[in-house]
Amino acid sequence: MRAAIAGASGYAGGELLRLLLSHPGIEIGALTAGSNAGTLLGAHQPHLAPLAGRPLLETTAETLGGHDVVFLALPHGQSAAIAEQLGPDTLIVDCGADFRLTDPAAWEHFYGGAHAGTWPYGLPELPGQRERLRDTRRIAVPGCYPTAVTLAVFPALAAGLAAPDVVVVAATGTSGAGKSLKPHLLGSEVMGSVSAYGVGGTHRHTPEMEQNLAAVAGEPVTVSFTPMLAPMSRGILATCTAPARPGVTAEALREAYELAAKDEPFLRLLPAGQWPATSMTLGANTAALQVALDERAGRVVVVIAIDNLTKGTAGGAVQSANLALGLPEELGLPLNGVAP
Amino acid sequence: MRAAIAGASGYAGGELLRLLLSHPGIEIGALTAGSNAGTLLGAHQPHLAPLAGRPLLETTAETLGGHDVVFLALPHGQSAAIAEQLGPDTLIVDCGADFRLTDPAAWEHFYGGAHAGTWPYGLPELPGQRERLRDTRRIAVPGCYPTAVTLAVFPALAAGLAAPDVVVVAATGTSGAGKSLKPHLLGSEVMGSVSAYGVGGTHRHTPEMEQNLAAVAGEPVTVSFTPMLAPMSRGILATCTAPARPGVTAEALREAYELAAKDEPFLRLLPAGQWPATSMTLGANTAALQVALDERAGRVVVVIAIDNLTKGTAGGAVQSANLALGLPEELGLPLNGVAP
Amino acid sequence: MRAAIAGASGYAGGELLRLLLSHPGIEIGALTAGSNAGTLLGAHQPHLAPLAGRPLLETTAETLGGHDVVFLALPHGQSAAIAEQLGPDTLIVDCGADFRLTDPAAWEHFYGGAHAGTWPYGLPELPGQRERLRDTRRIAVPGCYPTAVTLAVFPALAAGLAAPDVVVVAATGTSGAGKSLKPHLLGSEVMGSVSAYGVGGTHRHTPEMEQNLAAVAGEPVTVSFTPMLAPMSRGILATCTAPARPGVTAEALREAYELAAKDEPFLRLLPAGQWPATSMTLGANTAALQVALDERAGRVVVVIAIDNLTKGTAGGAVQSANLALGLPEELGLPLNGVAP
Amino acid sequence: MRAAIAGASGYAGGELLRLLLSHPGIEIGALTAGSNAGTLLGAHQPHLAPLAGRPLLETTAETLGGHDVVFLALPHGQSAAIAEQLGPDTLIVDCGADFRLTDPAAWEHFYGGAHAGTWPYGLPELPGQRERLRDTRRIAVPGCYPTAVTLAVFPALAAGLAAPDVVVVAATGTSGAGKSLKPHLLGSEVMGSVSAYGVGGTHRHTPEMEQNLAAVAGEPVTVSFTPMLAPMSRGILATCTAPARPGVTAEALREAYELAAKDEPFLRLLPAGQWPATSMTLGANTAALQVALDERAGRVVVVIAIDNLTKGTAGGAVQSANLALGLPEELGLPLNGVAP
Repeated sequence: MRAAIAGASGYAGGELLRLLLSHPGIEIGALTAGSNAGTLLGAHQPHLAPLAGRPLLETTAETLGGHDVVFLALPHGQSAAIAEQLGPDTLIVDCGADFRLTDPAAWEHFYGGAHAGTWPYGLPELPGQRERLRDTRRIAVPGCYPTAVTLAVFPALAAGLAAPDVVVVAATGTSGAGKSLKPHLLGSEVMGSVSAYGVGGTHRHTPEMEQNLAAVAGEPVTVSFTPMLAPMSRGILATCTAPARPGVTAEALREAYELAAKDEPFLRLLPAGQWPATSMTLGANTAALQVALDERAGRVVVVIAIDNLTKGTAGGAVQSANLALGLPEELGLPLNGVAP
Repeated sequence: MRAAIAGASGYAGGELLRLLLSHPGIEIGALTAGSNAGTLLGAHQPHLAPLAGRPLLETTAETLGGHDVVFLALPHGQSAAIAEQLGPDTLIVDCGADFRLTDPAAWEHFYGGAHAGTWPYGLPELPGQRERLRDTRRIAVPGCYPTAVTLAVFPALAAGLAAPDVVVVAATGTSGAGKSLKPHLLGSEVMGSVSAYGVGGTHRHTPEMEQNLAAVAGEPVTVSFTPMLAPMSRGILATCTAPARPGVTAEALREAYELAAKDEPFLRLLPAGQWPATSMTLGANTAALQVALDERAGRVVVVIAIDNLTKGTAGGAVQSANLALGLPEELGLPLNGVAP
Repeated sequence: MRAAIAGASGYAGGELLRLLLSHPGIEIGALTAGSNAGTLLGAHQPHLAPLAGRPLLETTAETLGGHDVVFLALPHGQSAAIAEQLGPDTLIVDCGADFRLTDPAAWEHFYGGAHAGTWPYGLPELPGQRERLRDTRRIAVPGCYPTAVTLAVFPALAAGLAAPDVVVVAATGTSGAGKSLKPHLLGSEVMGSVSAYGVGGTHRHTPEMEQNLAAVAGEPVTVSFTPMLAPMSRGILATCTAPARPGVTAEALREAYELAAKDEPFLRLLPAGQWPATSMTLGANTAALQVALDERAGRVVVVIAIDNLTKGTAGGAVQSANLALGLPEELGLPLNGVAP
Repeated sequence: MRAAIAGASGYAGGELLRLLLSHPGIEIGALTAGSNAGTLLGAHQPHLAPLAGRPLLETTAETLGGHDVVFLALPHGQSAAIAEQLGPDTLIVDCGADFRLTDPAAWEHFYGGAHAGTWPYGLPELPGQRERLRDTRRIAVPGCYPTAVTLAVFPALAAGLAAPDVVVVAATGTSGAGKSLKPHLLGSEVMGSVSAYGVGGTHRHTPEMEQNLAAVAGEPVTVSFTPMLAPMSRGILATCTAPARPGVTAEALREAYELAAKDEPFLRLLPAGQWPATSMTLGANTAALQVALDERAGRVVVVIAIDNLTKGTAGGAVQSANLALGLPEELGLPLNGVAP
């Protein structure tokens, strides 16, 4: 199998390449970029030694054509046009938001402009979702926050242990914002400081979380979501709480999460008493989580750690692509974090 | 006025000294320590150049006696014995937890052992509290998290705009854990990683938050509190949300916070649209906060940033001591953060 | 005295304002900016609460005129034109490079373009320099690296204990590069990573170091200088070594440094055995240094820590301005670092 | 092949396990520890999901016996006794210092106590060394700093382009100090700060560098070495300079380094103009380096980046073990860094 990567000079593109470099079933084909087209990859991804001399081509149907799989790591709104030109037989894995939402009104409210459509959602751990990804030729890779929050909350909702009124506060590393040159992303600003942004229900990932969780809960789910920027490059740590249903016990809660994690290679319920740290999952496709019942406050509390670039973007993309290509789901995906 | 500092080799002690070194109304007297007694301060606080040669004495009634004010920055449980020996005329400012809680049962549940009593609570911004601190000879300095959370939430509860069912997720710098030598506090562990701890209603600061907020709300308040350790030395960023009361508007919410911050020198409501970052308050006694109404989720969301060692400990201690000593409340307390 | 600050939205400008806010002898007047003119200071320096509502004016002779002192924190090459228009009676303190070098050829080689001239050099600790700064109306503030390296090396050269062939490797925080929006300054790039830049004698601060040290040594001095970008916002730690002259002893070396630091309020020779860390000087105008004789390698080794924005830029500027204005040299300048 | 790891709860042990978990030719056998024996690995290495439930045994000849290869990641001085008991047929790879030095006097001066002996030195890139490692049953893994400095400097000395009088200043991440619980290694102390230590020719890695370089140069080599602790968990960036021999050109220098890197899988000479950052090599067995001729100062300047735990310890250990076991040298060793 040969893969092309569009947006190879960005952070998502770089992580896709890092994973594919040690993927035994996928060979790296064309690399394309936007304004960086015409330069060498090594100028942008100096950590990828074997690809340093590879040129970045223009992102066109010609350069991306002729591959078995095309990974799109493009700014929002650019995927539909490319996808149309590539034809129905190419597996297209879109790391952008364009095809994630099912509700056009939600798309318009949060992203603006016309809704491009909906593709199979690349989160195999979501009940029933794995089957939908086998043999598809189109995959919408989840957002990084929705990946974390959905994996953290769905077991409690699926088991009817929590009310569908979820409060999420999540810290992310700065790579989640990409390589965009904005003053608040400068090292001088972010080091030694945690800051809030997108507060008050305004973050674009909110409807995606609600959509995923509603599908599991079988009823509408409200998410109050507050993201924070933390002084680290990678990682998301999300704290998710919801009112416990009457009579819920700590044992029932743990059982529900054990069941959910049971056969999932990348969902890791930590031993009781151990709480997630993003370092556990740095560079890995693993989600590490832990659950507690706060009996005083009457709430279920779930904390989850993922690497926003791996399980939250590029790893999730490769995992779903493996399914669609008929390869073993875990192929080429690291289980272990790089720590300390 | 002369001040003695017990626990001068720790982080709270160091911050007290940094503030007192530029305080025009308080002179630094005896410095004492526990296991570090007999060494020089410069070995432990090398950033305090003018005090580098000062010896650390044993923490006893003799070494602490004869000062106008004694700041205690001791491990929990050691303050009562010292306080008794110093007599009623010395102003004692306890940065520990011993005298914060009013409910002996809450003390026993969260700290264990016998409750030592309750002293006037050193948070002048709390309605009515400023007057109680004038001329007192005993002050219980609030915990760092309760300082942040109380300042963030009390205006909404006092104005009846939010229900008394609060969810708090707060990131702290590592200095909040003190200088204790534990593996999870090593630089190698904390850099590049955010982790959760004290989840599920188990953190000791929870009853203190509830006590403060219940006094303002005039009814019991439940706090679901989840702390996180962030890769920075200083700072707390707390996200606090509670259900909005029916009919609450964004305007009413902002007005309530403007009113609360109006005459408070250290409570800074940011301009609309600007959200707090801990760097805004690094080394300062300022709390920077912002509020929003999440109309989709029906929740009030408040985010607040403080420096855990300054407003959250030593600055709060000096602010309250100023009141008790009849000095201007703001004397010697920095308003501006050190940034970037 | 009233001061205007040109370039108030940048890092050097922000640090000048932070210092002046607690300076009892200088009042803050006009604030000007380049492309940020027309916005409020609070959007760029949110840590400076009392100035948040102050407007940023255009940088012109009109807005800067009528002040006793004008601090220029502008890009290289813009100071001469402004200075001419402000007239000879205004104290102008230039934080840029334009007037630091005496040798036009060195200027042209390292900066390009025509040499603007030479102003009295704002490093009062340099032998004989303090007197030159009293009553001057023009001050060229040293570069951050030259401040560190000159203070570290001049005592050994002045005492004839080291040969004039100096090797310097220095780590700097990212604020040294200012707020320029370049990919390698993004938080994602700098956190968790140390990198080299300006290697091989190409860094513009090299001739400034050589100029300072040659004046002290009375002979030409060669500096091999390698800077590194470290994952912190502030601070320079410079390691400076030079061949020891024959017969030099560790005692003679320490004596030379004790003599040099003796009456200098901001030059702090650490006790034997303690080595500098940048945290000792964070936010302070202090330089902390230590010296050793490596007898195996036959070299003098000096390590020095400063805050690049304080002693290395804005603090040095205020210190020299104090002298020129007839104020006490130490007025308004913090001695103590903010740590941990 | 089955491998036992002694010292599995430490940082070197953890990195060995991370590498071996994806090594197709070596299976992980017994894991042992010192004071952590009796606990589960997951308590100490939570990033290694598949091994979380593995017990830590006592470090004895019994638990380590019966494996093809034993990796020792023990405190200095403990390897000899274990090695004796394991017998001559087991491949023993010692990550400690015990068997690195050839000169007993240097050992006694820098480490104290009796010299244990000398084992083949595990740096295959050193001229002639690769052959010595094939089929050996004993390997002394180089120290992290000597790995970086030797790889950086040997090409210039081997080609006669630099004088044997080397000045090295190197920044390291905190994991180089291991998990020892010391105040200066706390996150609160190291974040936001660079500090110097082991200055003046006192660091134990100095004689090891000199030994390696003298062997290549064919004459004694002096190294003036100054290490710095940088606010990152992993990585070494070393700046190495030495006087250029008369007549040396930049072209000749680059040629010498191209020749040295030519067939070395883990030695990566960057394209001209690109300088190393530790992020390029994070988690990888690669050394990234660049060389320049400073014509003004007459010095060769080489900057190199490695991951202290990978190429600097565990990766170097596995690379040499591969050779000794007759496996492909690169087997199981990552080439690409995890970035950003």
